[in-house]
Amino acid sequence: VIRVALDVMGGDSAPAAPVQGAALALAAQPEHDFILQLVGPTDVIEAELAKTAIPRDRIELIEAPEVVGMAEKPVEAVRTKRRSSIAIGLGLQKEGKSDAFISAGNTGAVMAAATLILRLLPGFQRPAIGSPLPCADHPVLLCDAGANVDCSAEELVGFAQLGLLYVRDVWGRENPAVGLLSIGEEEEKGNAATKAAHQLLKSSGLRFVGNVEGRDILFGQVEQSGTFDVVVCDGFCGNVLLKFYESVAKLFHQLVAREAGADTARSDPFRRIWHFLDYQRFGGAPLLGVRGVCIISHGRSSPEAIASALRVGVEAARHHLVQHLTSEFGRAAEA
Amino acid sequence: VIRVALDVMGGDSAPAAPVQGAALALAAQPEHDFILQLVGPTDVIEAELAKTAIPRDRIELIEAPEVVGMAEKPVEAVRTKRRSSIAIGLGLQKEGKSDAFISAGNTGAVMAAATLILRLLPGFQRPAIGSPLPCADHPVLLCDAGANVDCSAEELVGFAQLGLLYVRDVWGRENPAVGLLSIGEEEEKGNAATKAAHQLLKSSGLRFVGNVEGRDILFGQVEQSGTFDVVVCDGFCGNVLLKFYESVAKLFHQLVAREAGADTARSDPFRRIWHFLDYQRFGGAPLLGVRGVCIISHGRSSPEAIASALRVGVEAARHHLVQHLTSEFGRAAEA
Repeated sequence: VIRVALDVMGGDSAPAAPVQGAALALAAQPEHDFILQLVGPTDVIEAELAKTAIPRDRIELIEAPEVVGMAEKPVEAVRTKRRSSIAIGLGLQKEGKSDAFISAGNTGAVMAAATLILRLLPGFQRPAIGSPLPCADHPVLLCDAGANVDCSAEELVGFAQLGLLYVRDVWGRENPAVGLLSIGEEEEKGNAATKAAHQLLKSSGLRFVGNVEGRDILFGQVEQSGTFDVVVCDGFCGNVLLKFYESVAKLFHQLVAREAGADTARSDPFRRIWHFLDYQRFGGAPLLGVRGVCIISHGRSSPEAIASALRVGVEAARHHLVQHLTSEFGRAAEA
Repeated sequence: VIRVALDVMGGDSAPAAPVQGAALALAAQPEHDFILQLVGPTDVIEAELAKTAIPRDRIELIEAPEVVGMAEKPVEAVRTKRRSSIAIGLGLQKEGKSDAFISAGNTGAVMAAATLILRLLPGFQRPAIGSPLPCADHPVLLCDAGANVDCSAEELVGFAQLGLLYVRDVWGRENPAVGLLSIGEEEEKGNAATKAAHQLLKSSGLRFVGNVEGRDILFGQVEQSGTFDVVVCDGFCGNVLLKFYESVAKLFHQLVAREAGADTARSDPFRRIWHFLDYQRFGGAPLLGVRGVCIISHGRSSPEAIASALRVGVEAARHHLVQHLTSEFGRAAEA
């Protein structure tokens, strides 16, 4: 049985949204093949559970009396609050009592705690964030989406390895391919790290489609070299892109409301478009490079987004992502 | 009288689009305060002129027998084709016979030729590309949009100075402000160059609103610190962003056609939206950091886009952009 731990105190609408998300996830998958571990102050969780119809035999309550606020300084919060829902939830995985951890809480604190508690795979200085992007044909994983700035070529290659394993195990992509974000298709285009990474990726044995330009990302393919599932870039560029994409969707919404009217913007076809563009439907971004499964959801996550994130955690555990990562990077470290 | 040189052989639809663009620009501004210099093989220009009704007293024909192809290697093309429309057109400015140069031709070749012929302002290793972005409220200039990768903090500050002078002189923005693209509002967020640039910008005397995140760009403002007119970043990030933005607009078009139908996507409100998002309406991107006015238009520029670019060239000349740049950077070099 898979056990997935949920940070009940994480996110702007905690504890209501996480608990409702848990109820949705359990209702959507009636098979009893996973158990949700609700982590937080037990009395708070009990009060929230009283409002829902969650089957008690499919949940465990894990006491964690401390809460890390959304605006707290990450490293300090992790150092001083050893019994926070984040620390306790991740600690379960360390002790072999859990298979995945999901939080919509303070991203920096989750990253710092995951690094400290789960520890990093060989070759990584920090975890990377994999962010699923809504794309024309199929979602693409952008990695790193914000954790590592000033990346070396070797780090970019590491992101490629992490991303490829993730989309294979969790998204079920067979034989996935990776592209390197750059400013031209030719291998001599790009900044220093990108040009060096291109050479390393070419000889890495990974399925590498070459450089991907800004305009290619959302269409998941490069003209000459085929489709890709993962786009690799440093966390500076990745973070800028991700936030920019969100804001373009917001701008479109305003433009449609202004030019075609608020009714059009609220109509069914446009609801479908806004839903399509809402990356929350993917349920969260995996923290990659740690020895465990840790999914970071948006602070504004709805119950539906939390439920999606829980499903992501279940998939990662079901397909043995951690074992695959450990074995891949163990080999790499030996070689 | 202002004289603006146009590369008649530049762009995918040359010579037709440039000559039609010239006709539009002259028709739109009936005052005789500028003269267009049409640069290219004179016989080709004459043949094209025969199809339009351009008043001959407002144009000059400048013979340039060689043509640089869109796919030619820039540096080689500039070295071997000294009598190309690009080289001759820029040479006019060098000789004091012209005030601006506009080309929809091979971007790399225009950059290389502008660097060689116009020369750079003190402190620059390469020119920077300023790219106007369609934004919610008012356009924002993104600089650098692709020419300089691996930028130093000093280069980023240079882009800020260039961009601010440009939007003041050409867009008529009074007391414009600049933001620094980063991954958080706090000054300690960002990569090494960005963090150092933040400190330099704070003490530069420029109107600096601080860090701007990806989500802020299109809304032209940062919550705490107010609105901005220019966003500064390295050319890697800028190029990725610019191409990504284009592709989001394309994706959105596909989504509207798919979900709401092709008729909706073609209806007037949506035509206005596609026009709003089409950065071609701004007519081109200034090459900044050279001792002259050089506007690069998209290779696919329509006659309307060429006409806009010509107007940009006229504005830059009318407001003495080059004199202001030379004096600002002359002072900086002395200090």
